[in-house]
Amino acid sequence: MHSYSGDPLFLEPFWMQHLASSALVVAGWHQMSYTYGGKSFFSKELAKVVRKVHASVGNAVTQNRFIIFGAGSTQVLSAAVFALSPENNSSPAKVVTSVPYYPVDKQQTQYFSSQKFKYEGDAYRWNNRSDCSSTNMIEIVTSPNNPDGQLKKAIFHGPNVKTIYDHAYYWPHFTPIPAPSDEDVMVFTLSKLTGHAGTRLGWAVIKDETVFNRMMIHMRMNSMGVSKDAQLRAFKLLNAVLEEGTGIFDFAYQTMKSRWERLVQTVSLSNRFSLQENNPQYCTFYNKVRQLSPAYAWLKCEREEDKDCYAVLEAANIIGRQGNLFGAEDGYVRLSLVRTQDDFDILIERLHKLITEGDGDKTM
Amino acid sequence: MHSYSGDPLFLEPFWMQHLASSALVVAGWHQMSYTYGGKSFFSKELAKVVRKVHASVGNAVTQNRFIIFGAGSTQVLSAAVFALSPENNSSPAKVVTSVPYYPVDKQQTQYFSSQKFKYEGDAYRWNNRSDCSSTNMIEIVTSPNNPDGQLKKAIFHGPNVKTIYDHAYYWPHFTPIPAPSDEDVMVFTLSKLTGHAGTRLGWAVIKDETVFNRMMIHMRMNSMGVSKDAQLRAFKLLNAVLEEGTGIFDFAYQTMKSRWERLVQTVSLSNRFSLQENNPQYCTFYNKVRQLSPAYAWLKCEREEDKDCYAVLEAANIIGRQGNLFGAEDGYVRLSLVRTQDDFDILIERLHKLITEGDGDKTM
Repeated sequence: MHSYSGDPLFLEPFWMQHLASSALVVAGWHQMSYTYGGKSFFSKELAKVVRKVHASVGNAVTQNRFIIFGAGSTQVLSAAVFALSPENNSSPAKVVTSVPYYPVDKQQTQYFSSQKFKYEGDAYRWNNRSDCSSTNMIEIVTSPNNPDGQLKKAIFHGPNVKTIYDHAYYWPHFTPIPAPSDEDVMVFTLSKLTGHAGTRLGWAVIKDETVFNRMMIHMRMNSMGVSKDAQLRAFKLLNAVLEEGTGIFDFAYQTMKSRWERLVQTVSLSNRFSLQENNPQYCTFYNKVRQLSPAYAWLKCEREEDKDCYAVLEAANIIGRQGNLFGAEDGYVRLSLVRTQDDFDILIERLHKLITEGDGDKTM
Repeated sequence: MHSYSGDPLFLEPFWMQHLASSALVVAGWHQMSYTYGGKSFFSKELAKVVRKVHASVGNAVTQNRFIIFGAGSTQVLSAAVFALSPENNSSPAKVVTSVPYYPVDKQQTQYFSSQKFKYEGDAYRWNNRSDCSSTNMIEIVTSPNNPDGQLKKAIFHGPNVKTIYDHAYYWPHFTPIPAPSDEDVMVFTLSKLTGHAGTRLGWAVIKDETVFNRMMIHMRMNSMGVSKDAQLRAFKLLNAVLEEGTGIFDFAYQTMKSRWERLVQTVSLSNRFSLQENNPQYCTFYNKVRQLSPAYAWLKCEREEDKDCYAVLEAANIIGRQGNLFGAEDGYVRLSLVRTQDDFDILIERLHKLITEGDGDKTM
């Protein structure tokens, strides 16, 4: 039972139900060139349909913005960090994220660190420090946050601060949409929208042309653009999303909402565990006040003796992700709620057994 | 008329002639997950067919070797440089290439340079220098070479030397195959084999498990694996390659051979230009002595006053790539011979006009 990966297989049944609109035929001679019409590595038609999807959901402003594609949000986030780093500077830009943060941001930035940028850990640690006003800072803001689903805002502001908003989960599946986001650099990914993680297709919506151009250079240096097969698949799927009206959002929201409710119900059977806060907000997509329906549970072991929450769950055959990976304490574990229905059912069953059969309940 | 890009559209007619074996149908729900069976980002079935193609051509030893995929040879080469750099070292590994070199090797290594590695230019400049024996060196050997098609060998050897063989062009299309290559790290790409540059699918054949594991980490950090749509497309195309017997190699070799012969004939009309040497070798694939049938012409302007060969050609509306991009003199220009037949015909026509109408011929 692996609840550690964010593999979004919860959308597989939706695509099985919509065979006709989503199937793709590719001829052997189709789109062999590096580029589209000898010009760009990136499909203009794909950028158009991305804009349409954002407009129909109302989660991001894309008019008069540049769009760039990459191999998943992973490659796009890295391109943004490179592009926002100062070109000629004696000291590297400080890249920060606030705890609990998405582990890949840390790992990737450390892996590629150079004279251009360096990972500097928890954003809160640097807040209010005088040496920051003169240093180039890059803050990555994951909103909704991975692991806890909260809508986050940047901590740093100022002339030397660049901000990257990772909006992978900013879809009605996972969160109320209070307003279209209008940040300088916004990163999205097909994997959390349609569930096609293996296609590796992410994008950024960018205000500034210089940043866009530097990200284009990154994509050329890193992988000479992005797979056209991935772009074609994304094009077909996003057109199917539009064709089905609110269908995919309704399916995804209902699925995630009902999973969250079952989880809350299970966890509430004891005081041994707690879940993240879930404050209702107005959702402009559904025109109503909604709770989160998050992709992950940010579970806390509440007992003094359960400091290693991962081990507690592992003993019950539930494999989550340790809190310390997210810069948090090991009293926390992230559980994935986006996998297949079977996986989710087994998770609930084992959690229920742990909670009701554990000695904790005898003392309730 | 752009003869600068290596866009391998010369194979498009082959795929148009083989519709049935190469067409692909993808259902919307197909392969959504990040991984294959929850395990690897990379398809085992694709690795199998890659091994079969190498075995049928006889250009690389793949038994008991690891295979890793990436977004084109571009990403794979970068992964190899990262993986071959020392993990904990005070001074970065020196990455070298020998002139004339493939420009991307230099540009990419400079772009990603860090405490792990640094681009140090022409390999010949470092040869025989005493400080090299104690320094970590990484030599990238492009063989057949881009731009000049020569079968190159590594210059550096020794305990601190790691070598990456870029074998993108080591196919019967472009060169005699004297023997299966059996180097530590060998890089190939779909773009120069089947012509599908836009699919962005490259691979490395690797002897050492530690190097393989470090390249796997790179692929995870860089883009969380590689597009499954690209892997599926490559799988279908490589199976079609096998199904067609020697068909694609016969088509590609005949096309490139006849283009080379037309070019040689045109250039030989004057002494103003010369082409790279083309020494015949025994080809184990065709069981005969063969000349190169290279992907590029490495054209030299022979006249004293034609120091800027790019400008000479540009005036005749032929756009090549300047010699200095390859670390060579600007008396050289690279012309691409792998584009469409129309592009090639226009190239020959303009070159013919330049040669026969230019004042050079009056003095012949």
